Amino acid sequence: MVSEPDPELLEQLRALLGDTGLRIQPDDVIPDVVLRPQTTEQVSGILRLCCAWGQAVVPMGGKTGLANGHIQTDGEFGLSLERMNTIEEIDSSNRTMTVQAGCILQVAVEAAAEQGLLLPLDFGARGSATLGGIAATNAGGNRVIRYGMAREVILGLEVVLADGTVITSLNKMLKNNTGYDIKQWFIGAEGTLGVITRVVLRLRPNPISENTALLAVDSFDALTGLLHSLDARTSGQLSGFEVMWPEFYEYITREGSLHKTPLPHGSAYYVLVETLGSEPESDAEHFEAVLGQAMEDGLIADAVLARSQSERNALWEIRDDVLEFFKLGPIIPFDVSVTLDKMEGFIEDIRAGMNTLPDAICIVFGHLGDSNLHLILGSKDAEAFDHQALNTLLYETVQHHQGSVSAEHGIGVSKREQLFRSRSAAELQLMMAMKKMLDPKNILNPNKIFSAETLAAG
Amino acid sequence: MVSEPDPELLEQLRALLGDTGLRIQPDDVIPDVVLRPQTTEQVSGILRLCCAWGQAVVPMGGKTGLANGHIQTDGEFGLSLERMNTIEEIDSSNRTMTVQAGCILQVAVEAAAEQGLLLPLDFGARGSATLGGIAATNAGGNRVIRYGMAREVILGLEVVLADGTVITSLNKMLKNNTGYDIKQWFIGAEGTLGVITRVVLRLRPNPISENTALLAVDSFDALTGLLHSLDARTSGQLSGFEVMWPEFYEYITREGSLHKTPLPHGSAYYVLVETLGSEPESDAEHFEAVLGQAMEDGLIADAVLARSQSERNALWEIRDDVLEFFKLGPIIPFDVSVTLDKMEGFIEDIRAGMNTLPDAICIVFGHLGDSNLHLILGSKDAEAFDHQALNTLLYETVQHHQGSVSAEHGIGVSKREQLFRSRSAAELQLMMAMKKMLDPKNILNPNKIFSAETLAAG
Repeated sequence: MVSEPDPELLEQLRALLGDTGLRIQPDDVIPDVVLRPQTTEQVSGILRLCCAWGQAVVPMGGKTGLANGHIQTDGEFGLSLERMNTIEEIDSSNRTMTVQAGCILQVAVEAAAEQGLLLPLDFGARGSATLGGIAATNAGGNRVIRYGMAREVILGLEVVLADGTVITSLNKMLKNNTGYDIKQWFIGAEGTLGVITRVVLRLRPNPISENTALLAVDSFDALTGLLHSLDARTSGQLSGFEVMWPEFYEYITREGSLHKTPLPHGSAYYVLVETLGSEPESDAEHFEAVLGQAMEDGLIADAVLARSQSERNALWEIRDDVLEFFKLGPIIPFDVSVTLDKMEGFIEDIRAGMNTLPDAICIVFGHLGDSNLHLILGSKDAEAFDHQALNTLLYETVQHHQGSVSAEHGIGVSKREQLFRSRSAAELQLMMAMKKMLDPKNILNPNKIFSAETLAAG
Repeated sequence: MVSEPDPELLEQLRALLGDTGLRIQPDDVIPDVVLRPQTTEQVSGILRLCCAWGQAVVPMGGKTGLANGHIQTDGEFGLSLERMNTIEEIDSSNRTMTVQAGCILQVAVEAAAEQGLLLPLDFGARGSATLGGIAATNAGGNRVIRYGMAREVILGLEVVLADGTVITSLNKMLKNNTGYDIKQWFIGAEGTLGVITRVVLRLRPNPISENTALLAVDSFDALTGLLHSLDARTSGQLSGFEVMWPEFYEYITREGSLHKTPLPHGSAYYVLVETLGSEPESDAEHFEAVLGQAMEDGLIADAVLARSQSERNALWEIRDDVLEFFKLGPIIPFDVSVTLDKMEGFIEDIRAGMNTLPDAICIVFGHLGDSNLHLILGSKDAEAFDHQALNTLLYETVQHHQGSVSAEHGIGVSKREQLFRSRSAAELQLMMAMKKMLDPKNILNPNKIFSAETLAAG
């Protein structure tokens, strides 16, 4: 039963936010209400009111999440941080940046770069993802192997609790052991425990040298040996170790595609490696020497080094051209983690399962240094495509290999029913106790991570 | 009012743990009871019983904490993890290590090194501190600038809640966004929210080159410039930036001391810098070149490079010889954080305050890259030593400069009354709500971080 928004509540919200602070879009069933605060005080006022009225609220950043954690359903109010997008400070002495939650990643990255500093978060949605959303989902991406997930980049947060209480915890210090580290509770909680309004980020020196190569590797053992060897010998500089299984590489560089074929087809694995450093000349020499040694050691079968920015871009474009797979037929992209010792067996099991299906599509790639695999499963025959069967095959196999059903995308709505495969009943009970403590009326992003029914029963 | 331990409870604990699992030491007033479980199940059984009886329990690791978070007072039972000290696994494929909580840091570091891997936690108490205690206090130390605090090194935890529930969350994957990251709640909570029984640690490649130098620097601006420049130009390799104010360096290397004087007295600051890398020859050349450039840029006034392991040790021994200051008179060592932009003003204010006292001792040093300062305040005249006055001067000045009253030592009992200076009333309320949710009877390390009275009133 969904009812129209209460006119009195809407009136009070309009008084708080002004006309431009309230966007009401007519809809077939119930009008969509989106609240657009400009200050933390307004967010607090919104939540005080919504808490009193028992009104559900869905916090929204750039709405680029891949687990539907930002989806607003009938009767829920959107709470968009889009008007809170200011970079409040770049502190080059402490190398921190303080932004409002609605600030877009790319804007922040460019502002930091102007000061010669690096905000080391990077992934495809950089042009629309907001730092509030990134904090709320503990986003990962391309350089986690070197700089960590969003959690490692966030020094401080401001968050508004379900009852409107503002928790301002804008720490800038790397060492600060004063009681419980509250910000950790909200990072990765997908807006279910509080609404993030400000973020303090740790900045790094901007690297000025970049070395990139595409490598062919013959076996999984050689692949892990290569990862460990490069990590050791490029001490602290390894920033990318992106593995493409042959179906990925061979399709993207097939005859007639837009890409050149930098290495011939037929190898077991293709790896894009990247280091970031500070000395263009000696870093390039060292990179080449390290790869040469790995080749002598039998870890690499073939290699091509990028000699210019355009060659670097060309290699990354192969890795990034994931949308191309939608041409194959109906597919589902998955994001999971499996430990390295179990990864080969995991993929064998998935392949065995897919082989029983007609015209199966099975594409594998991933950020191997972080245990993170992306799989694209589907069918060239649209008639034979069975979303449910693919979901079951994938997630049951993840569970069997003690993997994680979500590496970096979070749970949202999409993976809610899979969560039990990666977390124990005791863990889930504890999470739900936290949710109930911080949001007893379940008004904050309800039905994300846990369904209202599960919460009520738990 | 403290009463004798209940004989029936003791009997039940003896039945659970056996005779060797229970150590009862006679005491002037009340016998000290220390419980010594051998398994997680026994820890769970202990807490189930103690919860039912409302019996307070103090978890104990190596008891090396500097904020008295491990102190057992009359009527409380100690819960020592000393018999749970096994290294359960070193997984060289995933580069993780799983240990029981009572495992001693140095033992774990040496076991990792035997596999060519680095457990990058390091500080003075390495020979007695346990990994459970390190996790519970989010310990820091010497290499935080490169590898982060304990929080960044811990991938998974097993923890027993106050009611005996076992939460096994032994994650090994760098990317794992499956619901709330429960382990973060317990890291740094000083045993007040649960008892940590197992820890999964992230291991790194073992660095094989090490470069160390002692530098003299003329101004605070040059000091921060040097930190930023070295961090940028030794991309990813800077592992130490330890600053000694002149009173520190000049006293430790005074005539008649055990140390040589590698650089003449009279500079404004002395900095011990260290990089860890993988290529002994080229790393040394690069280190020298980077320091040469910094000297040309006017950031360094004088420098001495360690040419051998014994020279490296000699430089570190100057930095580490902190106990020497106890010879000056009664002193208090402090551990605080202040952001770099406020650090100079903070120290000026402390000095101004100390100058009003007769025969004041005021020694400053710190891990500057982490905002972490250690101060040693006291008086050469034991009669004039006023513990309370020094405490007040130090912590009021930290508060005035928006610093942290505890950088890496935690709160325990020692800093409990100072916590409000670094955390807001709203933050403290939220922390106490968490404590009450997870430990409603306040049996886990009571009176640490928050007094029982504060909790009851909050």
